[in-house]
Amino acid sequence: MYINVLNDFPENLNEENFQDLLQSGSVRVERIVSHGHASPPSFWYDQDDGEWVLLLKGAAILEFEGDPEPLRLGPGDHVNIAPHRRHRVAWTAPDEPTVWLAVFYNGKPDPNLT
Amino acid sequence: MYINVLNDFPENLNEENFQDLLQSGSVRVERIVSHGHASPPSFWYDQDDGEWVLLLKGAAILEFEGDPEPLRLGPGDHVNIAPHRRHRVAWTAPDEPTVWLAVFYNGKPDPNLT
Repeated sequence: MYINVLNDFPENLNEENFQDLLQSGSVRVERIVSHGHASPPSFWYDQDDGEWVLLLKGAAILEFEGDPEPLRLGPGDHVNIAPHRRHRVAWTAPDEPTVWLAVFYNGKPDPNLT
Repeated sequence: MYINVLNDFPENLNEENFQDLLQSGSVRVERIVSHGHASPPSFWYDQDDGEWVLLLKGAAILEFEGDPEPLRLGPGDHVNIAPHRRHRVAWTAPDEPTVWLAVFYNGKPDPNLT
């Protein structure tokens, strides 16, 4: 089913929504829609793949294990999350959908770009 | 240099602007900023890699060789361009920057998603 990334949202956003947009070999592009969601306390994502993530709409705060400061993201901000860099979503805007575009990939990124 | 994808534009947009955001193995994420640009008449892109493209801002019209109708894109619209599917940019909005996010990848995408 074709969805417009910025306009077509599920009616029910009680749960975070994940939608694959492209899958090819080890590359996957996913849209994530959050609505006040955050990772459970003490939960860390720990992924085998790299994840490049772009915030398209809304606002969010990410935490990375060992980092003293959380990372605030607004529309147009992006961050590359290396494989096994433990991270969690500390906060997303409670009053509007927050839309992320995530590109999952295998391997090591060019350090000059990240 | 870190750029906000939606806010940081080059001062001079006489030429289309291309900026790599991620490069890892066969995957590359690029931001493209157009400002009234179009492909030259009779020019077709013909690429070895697949390209998944998302229009973030502005408006554009793509043409695909052999397709009777061009494809109009607005913010949030995306299209997957298979390797060697010949295409050109017929038009972009003349009065504002048009921002694209392109994910170049190797291989065949899952046809259920494209």
